[in-house]
This record gives sequence, structure tokens and C-alpha cells, in this order.
Amino acid sequence: MAIREKAFSIITEVFKKHGATALDTPGGELCSLRYDLTVPFARYMAMNGLTSMKRYQIAKVYRRDNPSKGRYREFYQCDFDIAGQYARMQPDSEVIKIMTELLDKLNIGEYVVKLNHRKLLDGMLEICGVPPEKFRTICSSVDKLDKQSFDQIRKEMVEEKGLTPEMADGIGEFVKKKGRPLELLSELQQKGGKFLGNEGSVQALDDLEILFKALEKAKCIDRVVFDLSLARGLDYYTGVIYEAVFKGVTQVGSIAGGGRFDNLIGMFGSKPVPAVGVSLGIERVFAIMEQNQKDQNQTIRATETQVLVGFLGEDLHLGTELVNEFWEANVKAELMLSKRVMKHIDHAKDSRIPYLVLVGEMELNKGVVKLKDIEAAKEEVIPRTQMVEEVKKRLLTVKEATL
Amino acid sequence: MAIREKAFSIITEVFKKHGATALDTPGGELCSLRYDLTVPFARYMAMNGLTSMKRYQIAKVYRRDNPSKGRYREFYQCDFDIAGQYARMQPDSEVIKIMTELLDKLNIGEYVVKLNHRKLLDGMLEICGVPPEKFRTICSSVDKLDKQSFDQIRKEMVEEKGLTPEMADGIGEFVKKKGRPLELLSELQQKGGKFLGNEGSVQALDDLEILFKALEKAKCIDRVVFDLSLARGLDYYTGVIYEAVFKGVTQVGSIAGGGRFDNLIGMFGSKPVPAVGVSLGIERVFAIMEQNQKDQNQTIRATETQVLVGFLGEDLHLGTELVNEFWEANVKAELMLSKRVMKHIDHAKDSRIPYLVLVGEMELNKGVVKLKDIEAAKEEVIPRTQMVEEVKKRLLTVKEATL
Repeated sequence: MAIREKAFSIITEVFKKHGATALDTPGGELCSLRYDLTVPFARYMAMNGLTSMKRYQIAKVYRRDNPSKGRYREFYQCDFDIAGQYARMQPDSEVIKIMTELLDKLNIGEYVVKLNHRKLLDGMLEICGVPPEKFRTICSSVDKLDKQSFDQIRKEMVEEKGLTPEMADGIGEFVKKKGRPLELLSELQQKGGKFLGNEGSVQALDDLEILFKALEKAKCIDRVVFDLSLARGLDYYTGVIYEAVFKGVTQVGSIAGGGRFDNLIGMFGSKPVPAVGVSLGIERVFAIMEQNQKDQNQTIRATETQVLVGFLGEDLHLGTELVNEFWEANVKAELMLSKRVMKHIDHAKDSRIPYLVLVGEMELNKGVVKLKDIEAAKEEVIPRTQMVEEVKKRLLTVKEATL
Repeated sequence: MAIREKAFSIITEVFKKHGATALDTPGGELCSLRYDLTVPFARYMAMNGLTSMKRYQIAKVYRRDNPSKGRYREFYQCDFDIAGQYARMQPDSEVIKIMTELLDKLNIGEYVVKLNHRKLLDGMLEICGVPPEKFRTICSSVDKLDKQSFDQIRKEMVEEKGLTPEMADGIGEFVKKKGRPLELLSELQQKGGKFLGNEGSVQALDDLEILFKALEKAKCIDRVVFDLSLARGLDYYTGVIYEAVFKGVTQVGSIAGGGRFDNLIGMFGSKPVPAVGVSLGIERVFAIMEQNQKDQNQTIRATETQVLVGFLGEDLHLGTELVNEFWEANVKAELMLSKRVMKHIDHAKDSRIPYLVLVGEMELNKGVVKLKDIEAAKEEVIPRTQMVEEVKKRLLTVKEATL
């Protein structure tokens, strides 16, 4: 939970920086459980007749899958969507910028953002002569190219899905194209390029030109690979699609993805509202953060306690009076009552509490307390009246040192 | 959601100040939905063989009730519990302190904490001659005393639940007692007091003496009323019980409550682990916060955007370059592309964004931007290179002024 909280706070900060509103959509009728956050968002927009919204949501979703291989029936998902009329490709470029900002700030390691356009995929299939009713099933074959070789895919397309060998080879020519966005784009736009005779494809190339120039200015284009083989499974995408793939040692594959879905909101009975979004696979992010921590032999503290008040006796009211002085000063403090000094020291060490204030009746009578710096193993006797101030001063120094 | 987020952050801060760990318990088997957070916590402790934990949890719980009268099937609950062996009454006093800190910091208005002890209730019934098998049903009658008169309760106890009139009147003598904790306690402890011959009651009075002295030192005893009529519905309480009742104009009744439950964790098959906790009715807190806001004609902003970059044109990449300078400097910024100045000003006003940076091609060519302070309705022309610094400087001043 400590790792989760840290990740949540980084994520929320990025979303707020981009002017997003938090939205919580309730479970559906009859208390059914959410499968994802995109569909409830689309329904919320439609049912409330909204035409514009920039929202984020971090919430649990539920699947009926058998819990195995790091997949659970209940897990967190983290979505950001922009719905409404904007300048062409503006929301798309902002969503991709946000995705890279999230992954950079979470500091989980190297990744690339694969990017393609649905209309370019459709155009490619049209150009290769694939009949429209086979577009979706062929897309799902192409989508496997990150795990299988083209020969395997080719076999599937020809033998199982009934494409001619010529169609399959045509697709093969297209999908091997990937590279730096502006470079590959200008190659595809060159005179005589195959896409130029296809209306949808030309529109997609224009979209991508605007997008890539904006991503260049947003200083995140270096993360992006324009990849004609990226297909993404979901049917509701209508424009640009993307997927962030982790490059680190922990093999988790895709950690974020999304795209434009201009028809989904309208499917719930409202006027169509164009929208684009990204979904972050936050459980995979947690897994990577945990692994990185183990690799570095670090542990995140479960609590944030700054000082342990160790009272050497059993008088709850005397101990409470001491610890309450810290609470009133907004210092994170715990009270422990025990006559044994070592119990206090052990607890402070176990919980990695940096300071220990030790007080017994003798100290109380003298108006002093013992202040121990646990890591430095140093102890000094200070006046009780200065106890809170002294601890606060030291905490400030620690903070500055770690900044 | 903006109100919720504000409340959540206040609550989390208080819990952390007291050294609590965040815990998220999953839904039960077969994906059943949580009814509350106490039972899953108890099960978690037992199933993991834990003997000590100080945890908080803010999560949704689900009820099958018909959604009516401000009660929903899905709502947030917010729990804090301390389980484990501690000095006598230490966790109890800390939980009550935390409850008052939460309610004070949420700043929702006046409240009192009614407090009683389960063993004192049982002792009272024993002393009045009520047969043990009727304890729970009589307790539930007593529990209605905040809504009904004693005469109504008396009738129910005698006519429906079979107490003798003498028993009922004996109970009537006890339950009318309420007052300042230390004063009522010392009255009950006086020589000849009815409780003194009852073993469980004497133990409860000793508990309360330790507790009240600690609450005095924790400076929250002024919030507490020792009330012998407080019974609380749940069966699992074994010691001190309490309930915070809101005194404001919004009639919401109880907003927080809890008590000691020493047998619950052991019921899940582990060794018994003593525990005490509090549950905050956070939806009621939201309702009060919303009402207070309406009363004061205030609204919480849905976004936190600090500056709107209004680009007077359609070039996404030029607008992106400008807004990205703010994002890189961690300033919360939105981009809008439109040739109409009023659209930018209206959007800034509607969303209560304090600053607007207006830029067109003319400004770009001159290397300047127009910086508008929306509330002050002032505009100045500044060099583009100083744009981010100037906005940051002004934001800092605003912040200081509101502190």
C-alpha cells in the first residue's frame, strides 16, 4: 500500500497539472461490477448530456478471469480521457504527453510508445484487397506481431482466415515499417506512396503530421515509435492508437495504452462526442516499482512516524501529555509505554522512526527528556519545554538533506 | 469529487500523524461486496496470523438497501483501528483523540462524543435484575433513547419485552445519567454507588478513569459526554463505545462511532487479538461540507489549473510549445486554441483560472505575450522568455496572501 500511495500521488499530480477533474462513476445497475473505466465514463457523459470533459479516475475494476500469472479479479486501473470538441489533434497530443509524463515521473525505467492510426490500418487492408468484413479478424492477427513471427501470422491469415497469399504479402510489406515518427511519416507521404490514393489513409497521415509536430514541441517525440503493425484489440477506436511498452528486465509488456474513440459516447444514446484517452496498467507499474526496490535493497516505510515517544512507565496520562504535544504541532508521533529502554529502541529501529524521545519519572521531575537520533546512535538531554522544537528542527534538516 | 478529495487528504494526514498504515482488503470470495471495513480487517488479521496493527482504510462499502433518504447502495467508509497488546486504554484514548482531530480538522461544525462502556451497560442490566438472555434486546431499546422518550421505551420493555415495571424503572434511573466525564465518573465511584457491588462495572469504571485522565491530557475531553444511555447496535463491542453526534443545522445525527471489539479477530480462527476502532460516516461529512459551502455561497473548483494558455490561432504545435513550458516547470496549465479573445477570457472565468497568457502570431513575432490577471482584470505585456517566471511569481504571492 505504501508503494501504491506513492504512485497514486505522482499520478494525481500529473493529471491535475493538465487541468483534469476527478470523476468517480458508480457501479452499474443491480450492483454489477465495473469491467473497465472507459465504458462507464462514456455512459456517464451520455446520460448527463455532457459535451465536454477532461477527467481522470483511479479505481478498481473487476474481471471474472481465474486469478493467475499476476492477474487478479480485482485490480486498480487508472484512466485519463478528454472528451469534446477541440482543435484537431490537440487532445490526442496532450494524452500522449501525459502518458509519457506519468511513466517518466513514476521512474520505472525505459519504455517506448508505439503509435499507429486506425484509419491507416483500415487503409492498408483496403489497399491490399482484404474484404471489409475481414478487417477486424485480420487486425487481430496483425496485433500478435509483437509475440509471433510474420510467417506464423501469414499462415494464420492465409490458411485460417482465407486471405490470398498476395494479400498477406502485401500486408507483410506494410507492417514491417516502423521508425522515427517524422521520418517514417515523410517516407509514407512521398510521391508515389501507396497510401496516397486512399482517402482515409491520407486523412490519417494529415492527423499524424499535426500530432508529431505537436509532440516534438511537447518534447516527448523521442519516446514514440511510429509502427504500422500496432493494431490494439478494442473495436471502439477510430483514430490514433498507442501503447507504451516497458523495456526493463521485468517482462511485463504493455504498461499503458489508449486511443481515440469518437463513436463510443454516442452509442449510449446521446449526440456523438469525440474522445481520446489513455489507460495505465497500474498493477504492472506497482510490480515494476516493487522489483526495482528489491533490486536496490530498499524498502518503503509502511508508516511515516517521525518521532517515537517512549515513556518509561505505565502512566498513560503522562505519556499522552507528551505525545499530544507533538500531535498538536503536527509532528507524526507514536506513544509507547514500557519500562524497558530496549523495547523503545527496537521499535524505533524496526519501524525506521528517526527520533526517539525517552522519558521516565526521573526525567519528568528534572524537566528534561532524552532525545535519541536512531541512525546516528546519538543521545542528548534537552529541556522538555524545547522537546517539540528540537525535533522539528532536526526533521527539517533531514528533509533538506534529502532534497 | 473535489470536496471528497479535500476531505480524504485531511483524513489521511490525521491518520498518518498517528503512525497508521494504509491497508486495502480485497472483496471476499466469489467477488462478494464488502458490507463494512471492520469485519474484512478482522479477517485479514486472523488469516495472516498478525498480532498487532494500526491501520486506516478509506474504501467503498456496499449495501442491499433501497437507495433512499441519502443512503446509497455504494458509499465510502473510513475506518481506523488499532489491534494488539498495548498499555491499558492506550489505543482507546488514541482512537477517540483521532476521532476528535478528524472532526475538528474537517471543520464541519459542533459535535459531541457520547461515550459509554459495554460492561457498564451489562452491569446496569444485571443490577436491575434483567435476565442475561434479554440483555441484547433491552440494549436495543435503550439505544433508541436519542429518538424516543423514556416512557415509550419503558412501554416497549415492559409490554413487548417482558421486563417487570421495577426493572424498567431501575434502568430509567441509570440511563438518565449523563454529563462531564470526570464528574459523572466520580459520582458513580462514590461510596454506596450502585455499580460498586458489580464486578464487571467496577472494571469498566477503572477503565474509564484511566481513559478520561488520558483524554484530559490529550485535550479532547471537552468534546466528550459520558452517557449511560449510549448502547450502540453492534454485538461485537466488548469495552468502551462512543458515537460522535453532529450539532449543526444539517440534521445528520451520528457521524462517527466505534468501540472496543476484543473477540472479533479470534472469531476468524486465530488467537484472540484485542482491538479498538472508529468508523467515520464520510458521506455524511460530505453532505455537511456541501451544505456549508452552499450556505457560504462558495464553490470548490473542479480543476486546479493555474494558467490558461490562450493561443490566438490554429497552430497546435505553436500552442503546445508555449503550454509545455509551463508543464515542464510544474505549473498547472491548459491550452486553448481560438482566434477569439473572448472565448479565452470566458473559459478562464468559468473555470476560475487565475491567469491567462494570450499569444497570437503578432506577439510571437515580437517575442512577447499578454499576461492577464483575470480577477483584477489587468493586462500587461511581458517578454515571452519571462512568461513562466512571471506567472510563478504571481502564483506564489496569491498563495501567501491566502495563508
